[in-house]
Amino acid sequence: MARIVQKFGGTSVADIDRIRAVAARIKREVDAGDEVAVVVSAMAGVTNQLVDWTRQTCKLHDAREFDTVVASGEQVTAGLLALALQDRGVNARSWLGWQVPIRTDGIHGKARIREIPTGEIIRRMREGQVAVVAGFQGLGPDNRITTLGRGGSDTSAVALAAALHADRCDIFTDVDGVYTTDPRIVAKAKKLDRITYEEMLELASQGAKVLQTRSVEMAMNHRVRVQVLSSFNDAPGTLVVDEDEIVEQQVVSGIAYSRDEAKVTLIRVPDRPGVAAAIFGPLAEHAINVDMIVQNISEHGAFTDLTFTVGKADLDRTVKVLEEKRASLGFAVLKPDPNVVKISVIGVGMRSHVGVAQQMFKTLAEKNINIQVISTSEIKVSVLIAEEYTELALRALHTAYGLDAS
Amino acid sequence: MARIVQKFGGTSVADIDRIRAVAARIKREVDAGDEVAVVVSAMAGVTNQLVDWTRQTCKLHDAREFDTVVASGEQVTAGLLALALQDRGVNARSWLGWQVPIRTDGIHGKARIREIPTGEIIRRMREGQVAVVAGFQGLGPDNRITTLGRGGSDTSAVALAAALHADRCDIFTDVDGVYTTDPRIVAKAKKLDRITYEEMLELASQGAKVLQTRSVEMAMNHRVRVQVLSSFNDAPGTLVVDEDEIVEQQVVSGIAYSRDEAKVTLIRVPDRPGVAAAIFGPLAEHAINVDMIVQNISEHGAFTDLTFTVGKADLDRTVKVLEEKRASLGFAVLKPDPNVVKISVIGVGMRSHVGVAQQMFKTLAEKNINIQVISTSEIKVSVLIAEEYTELALRALHTAYGLDAS
Repeated sequence: MARIVQKFGGTSVADIDRIRAVAARIKREVDAGDEVAVVVSAMAGVTNQLVDWTRQTCKLHDAREFDTVVASGEQVTAGLLALALQDRGVNARSWLGWQVPIRTDGIHGKARIREIPTGEIIRRMREGQVAVVAGFQGLGPDNRITTLGRGGSDTSAVALAAALHADRCDIFTDVDGVYTTDPRIVAKAKKLDRITYEEMLELASQGAKVLQTRSVEMAMNHRVRVQVLSSFNDAPGTLVVDEDEIVEQQVVSGIAYSRDEAKVTLIRVPDRPGVAAAIFGPLAEHAINVDMIVQNISEHGAFTDLTFTVGKADLDRTVKVLEEKRASLGFAVLKPDPNVVKISVIGVGMRSHVGVAQQMFKTLAEKNINIQVISTSEIKVSVLIAEEYTELALRALHTAYGLDAS
Repeated sequence: MARIVQKFGGTSVADIDRIRAVAARIKREVDAGDEVAVVVSAMAGVTNQLVDWTRQTCKLHDAREFDTVVASGEQVTAGLLALALQDRGVNARSWLGWQVPIRTDGIHGKARIREIPTGEIIRRMREGQVAVVAGFQGLGPDNRITTLGRGGSDTSAVALAAALHADRCDIFTDVDGVYTTDPRIVAKAKKLDRITYEEMLELASQGAKVLQTRSVEMAMNHRVRVQVLSSFNDAPGTLVVDEDEIVEQQVVSGIAYSRDEAKVTLIRVPDRPGVAAAIFGPLAEHAINVDMIVQNISEHGAFTDLTFTVGKADLDRTVKVLEEKRASLGFAVLKPDPNVVKISVIGVGMRSHVGVAQQMFKTLAEKNINIQVISTSEIKVSVLIAEEYTELALRALHTAYGLDAS
C-alpha cells in the first residue's frame, strides 16, 4: 500500500467526459489499495475566461479580488471530480484551499505555500476517502483566498505530497513524460524513464514547459518523487528523482530551447568602473530580468562591447530605458535582436565528464551555426544562436550526444 | 445618512457591462453618504450551467459537493463587482459566505441562515467600505459551503439587512416593482407604491415571482423594510412594509395566479373516519405537497367525493401513489386534471371588509367561468378554474376590484 498524490491539469479535466475518465483512473489506484489525494486545475479555458472578465471589469488590479474570482475555477472542478468519483462508488470529498487550509503568505496572485495541516485528510484517507483538493489556491493571513500564480496547481500537488509524506506525486498532463528534447522538432527524441531534480529544474527554466519551475524546486527540497505522465493513455511516464536513484547516468539528459529571449548589444560603451551597474541598474528598476551577459574588450582599449539577453516581451521597454540613459551611459550603438534562440544542453553527468561544452561548440561549427553568447552552469551549457537554426541545431546536438532513439 | 442593503439578481449582473452599471448605481448611494452593503447573485445563466454540469457528472447527488460547485457563481460576481466599484473609486471588498461567515444549518442545498456576525463589516462600512457579499451561500456546521435553495440571494439580502439593522433592503430585479397583477396579461395593471408583508407573502406564495417567499417571511419577522425595484431604470419601486406604514389601505391589493397546480378528483370514496388520513398520508410520505382540499358529500350518503390540488410536476407521481392504494382506499374513479389555474385575490383590507369573496364569485359567474375549488385565508380568496380562462378572469377581477390604472 502506498500513499499517492495525483494532479490533473486543465486539459485532463477539460469537460465532463474527461472528468469522468479521470475518476475511472483514480479508482484503479484506490482499488489497488493505495491511499490517494488528488489535486485539480480548472477546466481548460475557464481560468482564461475568469482572468479576462477581471480585466474587462477594471483597469485597476486588486489582487485579492482577482484571486477570489479566478480561484472559482478549481473549486468547480474539485466538486465535480468528487461527484464523479462518488458516481463510481469511490468515497471522496472536495477540499478548497481555505478548508484544508493551505496556508500561504499574503502575496495575492503569486502566493507561496507556508503550511498544510494534513491530520484530518490523513485520517480520512486511512478510512478510504479520496481527498480532492482544489489546486492553485490557498488561504492568506487575511483570511482571503490567495492564488499561487500560473501553473500553481503543480506546486499545490508537490506541496501536498510533501505534507502528506506521499510515496509519489503523479503529475498528469497532455504529454506522456519528459523527453530528451521537443519531439515535435526532433522525431528521434526519447522519453526519459528517470531524470534528476537538478536536470528537471534546468529543463523547466530553460523552456521545457512540462512542469512549473517552482514545483520542481519544491520537489527537490522536500525529496518528493514526481512522476510526469499522460492522462490520455496508460503509458508509464518519467520519474523525477534524486540523483542516487538513477543507476546509469547519461552525461547529457536533455536539450532544451527557448524562443522567449531577445538579444541586446551595446557597442562602444566607455569602459570604466561601474558601467555594468549603470546599465543593469535601471533595467532592474523596471523589473526587466537579464539572463545571459557577455562583455568584450573592443579594438580600442577604452571601450567595451556588451551583449545580454532579456525576455522577448521586455525588449521594447529595454530599448526605451537604455535610450533614455544614452547620454550618461555613452554607448555608440544599441542593437536589439529578437530573432535568437537559446539552446541548452543539460545533464548532471557533466560534473564528472569534461568535453561536453566542446562537443556542443564543435557540432554547431560543423553545421556553420554561429554562437553569439555562451553561458554555463554546473550541469548546463547554453548558447544563443540565430533563431532560424533552431531545428538544425537541436537535431545535430541530439545526435551528437547519442540521444537519438534507435 | 442611512444604512442600506442592495441586492442585485442574475439579470442585473448578467455581463461585465451590467456589472459596471450596477457599480455606478451603488456609487450614487455611497456618494449620497449612505453606508452600503451589497448582495449579488450569479451572472444570469451561470448557475444553470453549473447545475447542469453536476447532473452530467453523476446520477447520485451529494448536496455538499453540489453546493461547492454551484456557489462558485456568486463568488465570481462578488469579486467582479468589488473590482468594478474600485474602478469607480469606491472602496469595496468581496465577502464569501464562509468569510462573513453566514452561518447556516447543515441542510445542504436548502440551508437556513442561523447567524450573521457583522462586527467587522459594520466597522468597515463606517470607514466607507462597501461590503459585496456573495448571495445564496453560507457556511454549514461541517465547515463546508451550503446554499440556500433557488432564489436564496433574496433571503441572503434580507437576513443581512436584519443583522445589520439596515434602514432598507433594496431588491433590484428585472421588473420595476410589485404590480396589482401580471402586467403582461393585464395592460391596466398598476405598480403598487407600498404593500404589506402579509400581502407580499401571499402574492409570493400564490405565484407572483418577484420575491422569494422565504425572504418575505424573514423580512416580516425582522421588520426589514424591503424595496423591490428595477436595476434597468431609475423608477421608484414598491416598498414592502408593516401595515401601519400604509395610510390608505385598499381592500384588495393584488391578484395573483399560478399555473403550477394540478387538480385530482377522487369519486365515490367510502365515507368513513380516517379516510382523509389514508389518502393524504401516502402523499406526504412521498413528499407531495397538497394545497387546496374540498370534500363533498356525494349523492349516496355512504360515499364522498374528494378534490385537491398538487404541484403540476407531482401529478404523475400522485396518480401512481393513489392507484397503488386503490384497493384499500376504495374510490371508484380517479380523475387527474392538469389544465387548471389558481387565481387569488389578496388584501389585508379583507379583514375589515365583507363581501370580497362574494364580489369574486359574482364577477366570475358573469363571465360564465365555473369555480372548481375555493379556499380562503384571512387576507386571501383563491379559486381554481379551467386554465383557458386565466386572462379573462384576471382582467375581469382587476376591473371589478377597482385596480385598473386610470
